[in-house]
Amino acid sequence: MHETKQRLVGAAAELLNQQGYNGTAVKQIVERAGAPFASMYHFFPGGKEELGADAVRWSGRQYGELADLFFVGGDVVAETRAFFRAAADTVRGSGYVEGCPIATVALEVAGVNEVLRQATADVFEAWIAALAGRYEAGGVEPEDARPLAASVLALLEGGFVFARAMRDESHLVAAGDTAALAVDDARRRGRRPRPRWACTASARSVTACSASPFVL
Amino acid sequence: MHETKQRLVGAAAELLNQQGYNGTAVKQIVERAGAPFASMYHFFPGGKEELGADAVRWSGRQYGELADLFFVGGDVVAETRAFFRAAADTVRGSGYVEGCPIATVALEVAGVNEVLRQATADVFEAWIAALAGRYEAGGVEPEDARPLAASVLALLEGGFVFARAMRDESHLVAAGDTAALAVDDARRRGRRPRPRWACTASARSVTACSASPFVL
Repeated sequence: MHETKQRLVGAAAELLNQQGYNGTAVKQIVERAGAPFASMYHFFPGGKEELGADAVRWSGRQYGELADLFFVGGDVVAETRAFFRAAADTVRGSGYVEGCPIATVALEVAGVNEVLRQATADVFEAWIAALAGRYEAGGVEPEDARPLAASVLALLEGGFVFARAMRDESHLVAAGDTAALAVDDARRRGRRPRPRWACTASARSVTACSASPFVL
Repeated sequence: MHETKQRLVGAAAELLNQQGYNGTAVKQIVERAGAPFASMYHFFPGGKEELGADAVRWSGRQYGELADLFFVGGDVVAETRAFFRAAADTVRGSGYVEGCPIATVALEVAGVNEVLRQATADVFEAWIAALAGRYEAGGVEPEDARPLAASVLALLEGGFVFARAMRDESHLVAAGDTAALAVDDARRRGRRPRPRWACTASARSVTACSASPFVL
């Protein structure tokens, strides 16, 4: 990506995180990026909407990669808890100004802007799928992994809302404890001995079952 | 409250739910309320910010009362699950246009408008306290009830984000299952026999302990 274009995307992502889509003017993005105003419409002929969608998708990938620092193939319960504690530290460290880079935009646009709604939906879908994969690798049944991942990320999103609004990151720590409880519960269910026919009934779990019928 | 003032507050609350604070113009609120434009500044000399704060607090009370329909002193696990299923039905019924009437505004203003931030924080605090009271009455330890209530409401807020952005209310149902799991876990801990000194050590639980040392 052209360096000026990247600066515009980065500045937009930061401002969307702090004040949402409707509260952010193109002028402010260009200024924060230190870019010439003309570059905005050169790189984004679709204007603010196109830049906003790019910023949402770019932030989504950045934050998705952040999760890689915490989920490294260890104990997924402990990793989940650590992830929430880091989120709590980050929110407090920002003076409660930053949280999830996607949620504010998602709620603003869900009913009114289909291009941006789709961008936020694609990011959430990618996050849920990635986290579900980590939980599955950590011992959670394939059919449980996706709703579990969605619930854990819902706790994170809701925790960000409360932490920022109430200027109190303890809500994210509490949400992390609940997330850890849910992951632990799902993993225990994954460890229960299952009859062999249950394994072969699901295409996705055949390999895991052949390797170890009781998924330890 | 004057009937025209109430119409303005109701219209503002509806629009804040659907498109947030920055996406809602005063003109649109006045039109939806069917109120004369002059009435806006008659009732709200502080303009959009004052009306916005009133709408947030009013919505907060309305939605708080909604919870009374679900939490009626029965099994708090089943009541929690039913509450989330109703939320899922409501989001789908609105065409994914409506969710939490407070969260969009909360995320938009947290870092930039202290008057509105305080209004959203007060609503969340009231919701958490009320739900914590219900869980305590349902058998959860006083010290567990507040973080539990915050986590359950975080699941609801995050579930709304995903359901609206992804146009898929199943995320709220999954969040409700996780909420029910957390409530059940907390209630089981509340039911564990505790030594009498542990009861008298906490001023808030003395009455409950005197009535029944093992809190059945």
